[in-house]
Amino acid sequence: MAKSFIEPSIKHPAKPLALTLGEPAGIGPDITIAAWLRRRELNLPAFYLLGDEALIARRAKALGAEIRIAAVSASAAEAAFAEALPVVATGEHATAEPGKPDASSAPAALASIRQAVADVREGRAGAVVTNPIAKSVLYRAGFRHPGHTEYLAELAAEDGRMPQPVMMLWSPRLAVVPVTIHVSLRDALGQLSSDLIVSTVRIVATELTSRFGIARPRIAISGLNPHAGEDGSLGHEEQTVIAPALKILRSAGIEARGPLPADTMFHEAARQTYDCAVCMYHDQALIPIKTVAFDDAVNVTLGLPFIRTSPDHGTAFDIAGTGKANPASLIAALQLASRMAAASI
Amino acid sequence: MAKSFIEPSIKHPAKPLALTLGEPAGIGPDITIAAWLRRRELNLPAFYLLGDEALIARRAKALGAEIRIAAVSASAAEAAFAEALPVVATGEHATAEPGKPDASSAPAALASIRQAVADVREGRAGAVVTNPIAKSVLYRAGFRHPGHTEYLAELAAEDGRMPQPVMMLWSPRLAVVPVTIHVSLRDALGQLSSDLIVSTVRIVATELTSRFGIARPRIAISGLNPHAGEDGSLGHEEQTVIAPALKILRSAGIEARGPLPADTMFHEAARQTYDCAVCMYHDQALIPIKTVAFDDAVNVTLGLPFIRTSPDHGTAFDIAGTGKANPASLIAALQLASRMAAASI
Repeated sequence: MAKSFIEPSIKHPAKPLALTLGEPAGIGPDITIAAWLRRRELNLPAFYLLGDEALIARRAKALGAEIRIAAVSASAAEAAFAEALPVVATGEHATAEPGKPDASSAPAALASIRQAVADVREGRAGAVVTNPIAKSVLYRAGFRHPGHTEYLAELAAEDGRMPQPVMMLWSPRLAVVPVTIHVSLRDALGQLSSDLIVSTVRIVATELTSRFGIARPRIAISGLNPHAGEDGSLGHEEQTVIAPALKILRSAGIEARGPLPADTMFHEAARQTYDCAVCMYHDQALIPIKTVAFDDAVNVTLGLPFIRTSPDHGTAFDIAGTGKANPASLIAALQLASRMAAASI
Repeated sequence: MAKSFIEPSIKHPAKPLALTLGEPAGIGPDITIAAWLRRRELNLPAFYLLGDEALIARRAKALGAEIRIAAVSASAAEAAFAEALPVVATGEHATAEPGKPDASSAPAALASIRQAVADVREGRAGAVVTNPIAKSVLYRAGFRHPGHTEYLAELAAEDGRMPQPVMMLWSPRLAVVPVTIHVSLRDALGQLSSDLIVSTVRIVATELTSRFGIARPRIAISGLNPHAGEDGSLGHEEQTVIAPALKILRSAGIEARGPLPADTMFHEAARQTYDCAVCMYHDQALIPIKTVAFDDAVNVTLGLPFIRTSPDHGTAFDIAGTGKANPASLIAALQLASRMAAASI
């Protein structure tokens, strides 16, 4: 990853970040409060929570956190941020106690996501940062999307065309993108295609330039099989699926290299040779980044018409309201969203 | 991995290590000479090369290395080691130039392996350490075994019964064992079975005690699918294949834990909770260890009736004879073999 991008001193963007509530009974409110309390120490970019002032006040009390809350509109959030946690009301009140999602959880979580997308698309926010949701809670309330990211993609649809969201895990030490994601390993083998690799890498290359400020991104592409198939003796997908995709990408002027043996792609010296590693399946991408950046990896959704980052963890119902939640990944997500907004062209 | 085992001060075993020649045209002779030259600085255990004195003399000259060579028998090797590189003749002369395997390569490499196994089994050596071979060279000469390890297993057969060799990659920071190894990912899915997991983990548990001195080894077992299948929604092998194996292992008194999501098994804090991670396929095991221990991981073969370690790299024909070969992995393999021999019960 280009050094200029990971320097912490980059200027903040002009607009505040829209932070969603996430699941109200999860640790979203806890880490939001904890991040805001560290705003000066870490020179955090201004953000506002799309939620419910009363819920945040209750959670702050439960945590023993002395905070001021400013109930504001998005346009007044940046000015308020230094002295108070800005909360922009969605109109959905969240009544859930920590660890105990209730009937108010799904409407409050979904209203927050919808409003954040509207804010960023209508120019009130510089980027969307999402707190974790609980899919099972949403499903029980009738939610019909496969997940958070797919819901955002649908909200971003234009003329009925849904963008292809691409999941990147980013840290200052390594950025990875899995081509297939939340499917069984057997289904990943079935889903993998040259077309999917090409469309994924095109989005990665485009956004490394447009959102990360890397003029000529270097993309490393893994093989699927051990030793990248060892010339076909350990599997054929490198030759029949990945190499043809690389040919198309390179003829489109993209600096894509591979298929590389996955096991030798991620040690420190190897990581200096590319800006992003594109891998064939979930664990091939997630094992190395969680090995080298367990606490501060950020989930970034590429392919949307706006910037979206997210902490790389779940709702952690078991520790919500206890003060044990670690805000490191949310803080990293806020900082990355801010840098991406500032670097965007 | 237990701290007592990775301390470098452990005493050397009573017997020297038998080091095979490997492919004579590869970097085996180079790294053997380089390791011997560092014997005092690193307090290396005594070892002897099973090979051809003339080949080593020629390679030392090509490298500009000032060494003495002692043509000895195995029983005299330890006494000679301080002042000269002990070479025990196999009777096969190797004429190959660096980078250019010739007709002498296969007989010389195979004689060295056979003699090393004979030496360790007949009590002349404490362990076998193998230099890299070139399978393609051996195949052209009529070799019919899938690889180095399988050949060793056949040499170790007793009453016609071949032991199950188990590949471990070891470093002071992480030890991993893949259940399926050098097959395509598709074939790995087909090969994976409860029986194979049980037999592999039994060998791992037994040898962590008998050869690594860990009284009660803690073994972490990965899932196959993303998030270890997420209760069956991302794949069923955790429930149908891995969980039944764990049940058998635990009822046999083995401290085996899993199936664990593979992506969160390998960060620093997680690695403190087990002595060895057993993974379902090659890259799941090799990605994390090569990420955290690229230069000094050692290949260890468990399941044999003797200790065998090996550097974790190939013949590197392109740099043989140039002085560029890094002996770090061979040195780590010698040190580990010595510690295992000293710890063995």
